[in-house]
Amino acid sequence: MPSVHRIFNFAAGPAVLPLPVLEEIQRDLVSLPGVGMSILEISHRSETFESILAKAEADIRTLGNIPANYKVLFLQGGASLQFSMVPMNLLTAGATADYIDSGSWAEKAVKEAKKVGTVNVSATTKDENYSRVPKQAELKLTPGAAYVHMTSNNTIEGTEFKELPDVAGAPLVNDTSSDMFSRPIDVGRHALIYSGAQKNMGPAGVTIVIVRDDMLARSQKSLPTMLNYAVHAENGSMYNTPPAFAVYALGLVMKWLIARGGLPAIAAVNERKAGKLYAEIDRTGFYRGTAHKDCRSLMNVTFRLASEDLEKRFIKESTAAGLDGLKGHRSVGGMRASIYNAFPEEGVDALVAFMREFERKQG
Amino acid sequence: MPSVHRIFNFAAGPAVLPLPVLEEIQRDLVSLPGVGMSILEISHRSETFESILAKAEADIRTLGNIPANYKVLFLQGGASLQFSMVPMNLLTAGATADYIDSGSWAEKAVKEAKKVGTVNVSATTKDENYSRVPKQAELKLTPGAAYVHMTSNNTIEGTEFKELPDVAGAPLVNDTSSDMFSRPIDVGRHALIYSGAQKNMGPAGVTIVIVRDDMLARSQKSLPTMLNYAVHAENGSMYNTPPAFAVYALGLVMKWLIARGGLPAIAAVNERKAGKLYAEIDRTGFYRGTAHKDCRSLMNVTFRLASEDLEKRFIKESTAAGLDGLKGHRSVGGMRASIYNAFPEEGVDALVAFMREFERKQG
Repeated sequence: MPSVHRIFNFAAGPAVLPLPVLEEIQRDLVSLPGVGMSILEISHRSETFESILAKAEADIRTLGNIPANYKVLFLQGGASLQFSMVPMNLLTAGATADYIDSGSWAEKAVKEAKKVGTVNVSATTKDENYSRVPKQAELKLTPGAAYVHMTSNNTIEGTEFKELPDVAGAPLVNDTSSDMFSRPIDVGRHALIYSGAQKNMGPAGVTIVIVRDDMLARSQKSLPTMLNYAVHAENGSMYNTPPAFAVYALGLVMKWLIARGGLPAIAAVNERKAGKLYAEIDRTGFYRGTAHKDCRSLMNVTFRLASEDLEKRFIKESTAAGLDGLKGHRSVGGMRASIYNAFPEEGVDALVAFMREFERKQG
Repeated sequence: MPSVHRIFNFAAGPAVLPLPVLEEIQRDLVSLPGVGMSILEISHRSETFESILAKAEADIRTLGNIPANYKVLFLQGGASLQFSMVPMNLLTAGATADYIDSGSWAEKAVKEAKKVGTVNVSATTKDENYSRVPKQAELKLTPGAAYVHMTSNNTIEGTEFKELPDVAGAPLVNDTSSDMFSRPIDVGRHALIYSGAQKNMGPAGVTIVIVRDDMLARSQKSLPTMLNYAVHAENGSMYNTPPAFAVYALGLVMKWLIARGGLPAIAAVNERKAGKLYAEIDRTGFYRGTAHKDCRSLMNVTFRLASEDLEKRFIKESTAAGLDGLKGHRSVGGMRASIYNAFPEEGVDALVAFMREFERKQG
């Protein structure tokens, strides 16, 4: 295989994948070893695929130390479809769902839930442009809520919950799409976790749902079958044809993560990577972090410059230097460096060096 | 690249893909030429991906000669999710949807539609184990129906509509999952066409919906956003992160199909391939086709032997001979040879030779 040119990809998702994973996919693309067919062609009812799916699930369970009374589901439609599936399955008649509105994606989850049933926004930081996540003391929880919904990491605004909120015993539902498996996660404190794969877990096209068994009893038979968690659980994610390739690729990422030492090890790397960037942002005041320091994300590092002109120049020159995807979301402006698990530390070092040089040139 | 062992894959879906497509995916897997990132990593908002999606759509339009007043959508969830999305979007309040029940998948579509609104089963051949599709004279159509739903090819039973039914001006909705682009299709006679990709169009994980513009006005804003055709149409299939890799791979299959001469050319090949198999089935009476001759599928060739013991031996020995996936669905029994567009004619010849030899050995 000839060596190929690769750049540093700071995109917010779909995002960088581990190079060894890409190389294994490439090696076996035309024919899986001993199978004589591509992963893109094999029947989902074949033993080969069943073992690929089982291994991916087992590795997810190992990484997350997932208790036996939780199911792991491989679905489609991303977090956006979960915004509807969660209330359709869990928001029981007459009950209220609490939502913690910590960012643009949380707000979309609220919007979809309101189509299904009664929603209480327990706290919001929208007035502060979501520059921080709500504090525990700010949460107005509904007694007997069907569930409390949170978003552990806010991709667009670059903020992250450093601890799970205390939700007074209500079932906790967590959209972990942008920080899943970037650090240890206490699954046992959740009723349901969902995560689009395309940031920390694999390519776009598969969505992981981890759901506690007792929640499955809430899924009504009147639901569209494809939107019913209980059906997918009963069928081991094989009610219909799963997105086989995305499941396979996600499984390889899980294997890579275990080989790197699992969640405590990757968390240490992520702390170090983000630490380097935030240190550079704070060094002189030339750059300005947009998130409150006590809830800065380890995954999405957002920062601005003194003027939009300067920011445009930064984006243009960094892109030219092989640092791709640094333009921030329009709602925040400025820059965003997404540095998920698979993002190489050399890329962070390269960005820090670029930032120093860019600052020096303006001086 | 070392040559790899490939077998003949008769699976009903996910199914065989063209080898040149697999080889192109493999070549560029780690880094798309001139991009420096894998197709598995690039942002769906990047120019690179936007042009991949636009090219896939343009090639679909070319192949299907799709009129300008139709949108082409790239969705997730397969035909199974379309079973719900179709009535949620198109079955207007107070109206009735007509369903032609021609097979096991059509029956599932009926079941989901009944959760949404009023359904009239216009005709069914269930009592005949779906060994044929309903005839025009058998259709009991509802005047003013919201739409008429059909399934152009019945994957499990091996039957196919040879002509579109006359539905008296009602909007025609067609599940073409297992024969899409296997022959010319008159898109203009449809209101909506949907097709899971994993048989004739690409790998599992993407679903094509072709919808006439006037149908989009029926999608209510109260629908879950991800299940709303109008939203996906307005956003060019980019409301949320699309299954980028599956879209890319499907695009390569479309390019391959155009290079082979488009739908008339592939239809001729498909007629020839299926013709060889049916001729062998009919040759002596040792094999018995399960579908009525006037609606035999060109994609899924179903046949049986005199006893289940003999069938088991056939499956075992054919698998050992590198003819994989010939076991029929349990509801029909026997054998099923799925010979989609990408299935090589050499594989059909190999199966015919195997069938002759198997028959000779029993004699």
